[in-house]
Amino acid sequence: MNAGKQVTAGMIVIGNEILSGRTKDKNIGFVAEQLTENGITMKEARVIPDDRRIIADTVNDFRGRFDYVFTSGGIGPTHDDITAESVALAFGREVELNKDAYDILLDYYGEADFTPARQRMCRMPEGVDALIPNPVSAAPGFTIENVHVMAGVPKIMQAMLGFVLPNLQGGDKVLSLTVSCMIPESKLAEGLAQLQTRYPQVDIGSYPSFKDGSFGVSVVARHTESSVLEELAPQLGALVMAQGGEPLTSGPV
Amino acid sequence: MNAGKQVTAGMIVIGNEILSGRTKDKNIGFVAEQLTENGITMKEARVIPDDRRIIADTVNDFRGRFDYVFTSGGIGPTHDDITAESVALAFGREVELNKDAYDILLDYYGEADFTPARQRMCRMPEGVDALIPNPVSAAPGFTIENVHVMAGVPKIMQAMLGFVLPNLQGGDKVLSLTVSCMIPESKLAEGLAQLQTRYPQVDIGSYPSFKDGSFGVSVVARHTESSVLEELAPQLGALVMAQGGEPLTSGPV
Repeated sequence: MNAGKQVTAGMIVIGNEILSGRTKDKNIGFVAEQLTENGITMKEARVIPDDRRIIADTVNDFRGRFDYVFTSGGIGPTHDDITAESVALAFGREVELNKDAYDILLDYYGEADFTPARQRMCRMPEGVDALIPNPVSAAPGFTIENVHVMAGVPKIMQAMLGFVLPNLQGGDKVLSLTVSCMIPESKLAEGLAQLQTRYPQVDIGSYPSFKDGSFGVSVVARHTESSVLEELAPQLGALVMAQGGEPLTSGPV
Repeated sequence: MNAGKQVTAGMIVIGNEILSGRTKDKNIGFVAEQLTENGITMKEARVIPDDRRIIADTVNDFRGRFDYVFTSGGIGPTHDDITAESVALAFGREVELNKDAYDILLDYYGEADFTPARQRMCRMPEGVDALIPNPVSAAPGFTIENVHVMAGVPKIMQAMLGFVLPNLQGGDKVLSLTVSCMIPESKLAEGLAQLQTRYPQVDIGSYPSFKDGSFGVSVVARHTESSVLEELAPQLGALVMAQGGEPLTSGPV
């Protein structure tokens, strides 16, 4: 699909509460969107339980396969927060009390309130490359090689990602052209297949929707070159109109 | 955690549009919640791209490891819908035009409008065990051994799951006791760790939140036996009150 250089990422969501359905994940979608915006392609996302071995194995699998790995969840002060030690296990490193994290949290809580539980949030693998600032509740995430370990609470995770992203090297940004209409996608299927054959380098996706009793579809064409998508736009529009639909086109962006 | 019989499941979300962030997945959370309700434990969820080999490999990995596998996405009429053929590849079976699916769709569209693209939605692995009804847009999903292949559009996926679930054998239902309060979780951390040590068979999770500038936390204790959770409830309440919080308890449910 991408004619240019592809930079890849994988996302690991850590937490029993997501797998039980009690908490609905909001981080995969947010990270995916931000990565796309920055020319990084998310290749896989996984939700896994709070289990040291599974976390460590997944981190090792992902960091070998993808340019960047992001984790969310499990870096808080309670007994069920085991991400830091599991990432240390993945890298074969000891866990230490990170001095910089300690200073940040000591400053935030003050000496009297800096309890052992709160000090737990300074426990990180030895020799992390950088801390990830947490403007919401102080306790930082961390970067170790190509793995970025972030909080699970969406507001905090989003803030952390904002600090991480500017330091990453993105590839060529993939642009999107979207053509939406209120007809069932099956009416466009044959024409879309023909366009896909004619433009094999473009990733053409068809995303149906069903709302208030009506079928609609958004056709999304993705490529790194704006000119290719601009050439495709009127052809997609004509395809929709030939089936009696009114195309609403946006992009390429 | 679960003293009783554990029945497991894995969920595979198929679609480039989820990985690009264009579409936000709503299926993992819904399926997770419904499975919990039915005594089935989701052990892993994965979001993967529209890629035959990756879909087939993931299906084969999951169907060996979990009692039940659910997929969502990629069973529509367009060229980018490749789930059925990828699942056939996983099972080493040919793709056929499923006769029952054909009759359903012929009835739905009528002969004149039953185009080749729409007939594509009848292509399934040879010898599926059952079709999964689709009350929204007719095109059925299918069950092959322990793999349940469903649509990606949430409304349709939810309806399909409603047909699948009554036929599954759940394990002992895991009940939840929730104690929420508006204090930071770090204040409860030490007490929670002690309770977890005293009740190793209970899965005690601490889920922080941050809303309108205030920290809160929900402590969730999960176990199959109501009596165990009822014994734990007043101890969790006392822990919150000892830290100056007002516990709001719900469950066990």
